[in-house]
Amino acid sequence: MSSKSGQVCNEDIERERQKCTFNITELTHFLDGGIEKTKERKELEDFFLNIPELKDKVPTEYLSHKEKYQEAVRKSCILFNKISEWQTRSSSGGGINMYESVLGGTIGSALIKEGIPFSLHFVMFVPTLMGQATLEQQSYWIGRAWNCEILGTYAQTELGHGTFIRGLETTAHYDAQTEEFVLNSPTLTSYKWWPGGLGHTANYAIVVAQLYTQGVCQGIHPFIVQLRDEETHMPLPGIKIGEIGAKLGMNTVNNGYLGFENVRIPRLQMLMKNAKVLKDGTYIKSPSDKLTYGTMIFVRVAVVKGVAATNLAKAVTIATRYSAVRRQSEMKPGAKEPQILDYRTQQYKLIPALASCMAMMFSANWLWDMYNNVTSELEQGDMERLPELHAMACCLKAVSTADSAVLIEVCRRACGGHGYMTCSNLPGTYGFVTAAETYEGENTVLLLQTARYLVKAWHQLGSGEMMPPTVKYLLKKPTNKRWENTLPCFIKAFQQVAAGAVSWCANTLEKKVQQGVPSEEAWNETSVQLVQCAEAHCRAFMVQTFADTLNSAKATMSPAVHQVLTNVCELYAVYWMLKELGPFLMFSALKPADVPGLQLLQDSLLSAVRPNAVGLVDSFDINDQILDSPLGSYDGNVYQRLFDEANKSPLNDQPVDESFHKYLKPFLKSNL
Amino acid sequence: MSSKSGQVCNEDIERERQKCTFNITELTHFLDGGIEKTKERKELEDFFLNIPELKDKVPTEYLSHKEKYQEAVRKSCILFNKISEWQTRSSSGGGINMYESVLGGTIGSALIKEGIPFSLHFVMFVPTLMGQATLEQQSYWIGRAWNCEILGTYAQTELGHGTFIRGLETTAHYDAQTEEFVLNSPTLTSYKWWPGGLGHTANYAIVVAQLYTQGVCQGIHPFIVQLRDEETHMPLPGIKIGEIGAKLGMNTVNNGYLGFENVRIPRLQMLMKNAKVLKDGTYIKSPSDKLTYGTMIFVRVAVVKGVAATNLAKAVTIATRYSAVRRQSEMKPGAKEPQILDYRTQQYKLIPALASCMAMMFSANWLWDMYNNVTSELEQGDMERLPELHAMACCLKAVSTADSAVLIEVCRRACGGHGYMTCSNLPGTYGFVTAAETYEGENTVLLLQTARYLVKAWHQLGSGEMMPPTVKYLLKKPTNKRWENTLPCFIKAFQQVAAGAVSWCANTLEKKVQQGVPSEEAWNETSVQLVQCAEAHCRAFMVQTFADTLNSAKATMSPAVHQVLTNVCELYAVYWMLKELGPFLMFSALKPADVPGLQLLQDSLLSAVRPNAVGLVDSFDINDQILDSPLGSYDGNVYQRLFDEANKSPLNDQPVDESFHKYLKPFLKSNL
Repeated sequence: MSSKSGQVCNEDIERERQKCTFNITELTHFLDGGIEKTKERKELEDFFLNIPELKDKVPTEYLSHKEKYQEAVRKSCILFNKISEWQTRSSSGGGINMYESVLGGTIGSALIKEGIPFSLHFVMFVPTLMGQATLEQQSYWIGRAWNCEILGTYAQTELGHGTFIRGLETTAHYDAQTEEFVLNSPTLTSYKWWPGGLGHTANYAIVVAQLYTQGVCQGIHPFIVQLRDEETHMPLPGIKIGEIGAKLGMNTVNNGYLGFENVRIPRLQMLMKNAKVLKDGTYIKSPSDKLTYGTMIFVRVAVVKGVAATNLAKAVTIATRYSAVRRQSEMKPGAKEPQILDYRTQQYKLIPALASCMAMMFSANWLWDMYNNVTSELEQGDMERLPELHAMACCLKAVSTADSAVLIEVCRRACGGHGYMTCSNLPGTYGFVTAAETYEGENTVLLLQTARYLVKAWHQLGSGEMMPPTVKYLLKKPTNKRWENTLPCFIKAFQQVAAGAVSWCANTLEKKVQQGVPSEEAWNETSVQLVQCAEAHCRAFMVQTFADTLNSAKATMSPAVHQVLTNVCELYAVYWMLKELGPFLMFSALKPADVPGLQLLQDSLLSAVRPNAVGLVDSFDINDQILDSPLGSYDGNVYQRLFDEANKSPLNDQPVDESFHKYLKPFLKSNL
Repeated sequence: MSSKSGQVCNEDIERERQKCTFNITELTHFLDGGIEKTKERKELEDFFLNIPELKDKVPTEYLSHKEKYQEAVRKSCILFNKISEWQTRSSSGGGINMYESVLGGTIGSALIKEGIPFSLHFVMFVPTLMGQATLEQQSYWIGRAWNCEILGTYAQTELGHGTFIRGLETTAHYDAQTEEFVLNSPTLTSYKWWPGGLGHTANYAIVVAQLYTQGVCQGIHPFIVQLRDEETHMPLPGIKIGEIGAKLGMNTVNNGYLGFENVRIPRLQMLMKNAKVLKDGTYIKSPSDKLTYGTMIFVRVAVVKGVAATNLAKAVTIATRYSAVRRQSEMKPGAKEPQILDYRTQQYKLIPALASCMAMMFSANWLWDMYNNVTSELEQGDMERLPELHAMACCLKAVSTADSAVLIEVCRRACGGHGYMTCSNLPGTYGFVTAAETYEGENTVLLLQTARYLVKAWHQLGSGEMMPPTVKYLLKKPTNKRWENTLPCFIKAFQQVAAGAVSWCANTLEKKVQQGVPSEEAWNETSVQLVQCAEAHCRAFMVQTFADTLNSAKATMSPAVHQVLTNVCELYAVYWMLKELGPFLMFSALKPADVPGLQLLQDSLLSAVRPNAVGLVDSFDINDQILDSPLGSYDGNVYQRLFDEANKSPLNDQPVDESFHKYLKPFLKSNL
């Protein structure tokens, strides 16, 4: 039997595919959102993954830091040209979303593994111009930016401030005399730190700084600042700039630092769609604070699917295929070594990861829909559902990136030593995802924002106000019915746990305040529980959404696909109940005597999904070039591919490395 | 106030030290095992950390893979010479243990961050010769090895086999005609894969292969094989050798692969202390299978302290000091930004990590003592306590490396984006520790070995046999007393949970077998629970050992140190109870109504330890060069050090990188 690429498949993996009980392609279409979406995805992949100049001669992990960066710049130029070419030729066109999917998605990270130094240009620089520049400003800047005559980045975070943007220290003082802003970095901690592409790549930046005019600080505002000469690329006077150095991952993003010493820019380089500074220095406030809220939420929404779910799908695919090929130890004396996928402990590592991945995808779909709805409501001035969207985006971003990171590592370790190899692509995948636990809102901070929303909702329960859909379950009194091992009972239990956690937090806070603890302190003292309550809320949402997705698809889905997805959904619920057992025993109808039955159910669900494990990861339909792993390729030729990868190391080019003659031989001989 | 290095300390960190309630030096001596041990440690550090030729001009993370290796070889030669020098001059001498502490310990990883390519020479090659060669063989080989005239490694693991060493495929056929063994790699999966230093460094190896003589396979045996010419370093005929490529960490260890094609070695190069092959090919069995057991246990014992605990101590030190310096957000409107260590959620990340670190250290001490006792008993032919030692070494290695890895990542993320920087040394520390979750016994496999011991012990309960000390608690019937928030009640609860888990597993297994499931299948089907029961056993042991350590030290310890350690111990217990709440509600006297009180206790313990947090990590007394992190240095000058580190990037040597002229400028200009 031959693989898609024409190579002969490993026989174990072939057998897995033969015994799969459902139609893999049908599930692929479902996960993609329809056959048309699958087609579009594959067209994009075919176009971008087959550009000869973007193939590595030597895998980039063998290059020096500087060489990696230079390669990434070379490739980015080619890639950006190809993006224009695609836009011209493709009927489906492009626009800003296409940039997202190529630059931020799986294609981008297949082409330039450790990140594209130009990304922020289309991901942040252009969108910020579109959202916050006046029409006049746009007419000057957007054309130049869109055509890549200039290359921009977005400089907000500072060495001393990430989370708390009101605390940013960079200053922009308005000088009415010359109608200019004067930018300064008054302290070391006020240096901009982290913006992608800032180090040596971009020549312009949107800089967020504290605006001072007429002697008053008006808070943070965005400014367009030229950083480097367009001809020579030399930093302009007063600009202190460089890269921040090597990182756990994303080393070609060229994250930079930036300090200002009396850098003057014209008044019209403050982005003035919202707030304004007039010629004489008069400050005109923005009509609403919430106008810039949208972009922030957008990135979080994008992270749930684009970072958390897709990368976990990669890791699960790699580890599951490897586990079908790898044989080890004896289960029965004298019998053939079993596929490691037949070990229950291995199933317990991989199948919940697979289930979590699907749960994330379905929740991400829901979140995406809600984002689109709320955005169009916002355009009509309706902000009612914004807080709910914000609360869900916060907790889903936090929980999905955290789950994804943990489970990618579970997958990596499930591949034993071979998962530790860079070429397995599991370390890189982890490095990419774990960054998202911190950026665009640190996870603990985000969970506390959701918790604030939940506690507020809890207090509104008695007020007769309509509860938004995602917190309606708080209204239902937990009824202590008998426990049943059914999905509806599980969903109810998750909601009871979340409601129990919210109520516990609300009571703790109330008691503390009654005892005279100031409310901010009470909040801080309760914050460990508050984080857990936001997680419980999110988990309940994810279980419910998984089940809802299957219910609505039931009519159009083949029974075989529906059956296997139902097993996966149940496993997701049971896995997390057993993992977070305490709250279920406290707040739901589950009794200690029910636990052994739940454990048996988990085991039988693992057994039920096992025969379809390879089929399920196949349904993610991740291109071998995107997987980029000898352990996970479609054909399952693990060992030959590992061996071929090893021989790509430049150290293996010569039988004897020059360090022998330089260092080792003199050392050994001196000991004779 | 000035730091140890003479630099002015950050004022926040200085204030932390002033408010510390106990004598930091006293605790350092206690943790080191006495004032003499502290002195010895510092002498070793002073000697090895101040060798000018071992300082990096450019941080190694900026080098290419090949350059990293060459630097590591250069430094290893210097280091090995310095080790000889130390042995000559130092009164405390050296021996094999000194190699351990320099090569495997914190000093080694401070000098050659990603691992010493020569390590296995002294860590495995020489010890295996000592343990498994005859006196005649030793007289020839040990001298050459000890003087480093030759450099060896230990080649056991293969591309297709790690865990299951009986499955190794490399063959050694005895040819009585020529009195030689003929080594072959019959398949691709039989290639040796992973041994450190094998790629381009070692010229000899102990090779583990299936011995065939007189037509019979006698199982795996060790052989000394010359790999490379001593003069030219060229691979000898029939030797196919290279490195396996880049990894998540430890990139300078030079892990290699090795294949054989009819490689002939003299009969006397089989290590024959135990089993033998006579000239005519007659095979003489080893008198005991357990003789080689010791070394395997030794490495696991060493990992608990040397890898898991010491690296977690590094990470906690870095993150705690950083959290004392970092200020962010507002707790109260208008107030100064608080130190992030004042956020309860931050305390909940760092202080349990600190507590876990101490728990590991104390358990490691116990394990080390037991290892020494059992080893001397073994030498007198007494093997009685070997199974218990084996069971404890397995679970402590697994639980401590897993906890350490998870908590290092918690510490890293607790430093926000800055923890993602390579220079923070948190990513490298994680990479180093997570490797230990897989090597020297994959953790899941090890936990199942402990579980097997526990289930066996459980079945002996009724037999009247003496129970070994670590499983005595299985005998006590869980008494359902009222819950009390006291350490003795907690310890009892941990034991009840472990006993409950063991009993549950034993019953599940029994039922399955009664239902006709073959016992191997029943074991596999129950293995998720079995892993959890081994973890529960280990956790109960660690809590008990922490408390025991404090009890025995009470008489000689100042009340202030005893008090803070007692808080830390209680926090360790409460943290893990709340994290694994389900089993406590199922098996101990804890009731749902007791949980809020336990939560409040956790909060008050976090508050109690908070003022001593910096003092506690100071007591680990980790040298700044070993910490190797701008975030964690003793003086707390976080931001200046971060900035200085960034400027060590070779990309920052020039204001404009050549990639601008080569790629970026043509790209931008083409868009005009």
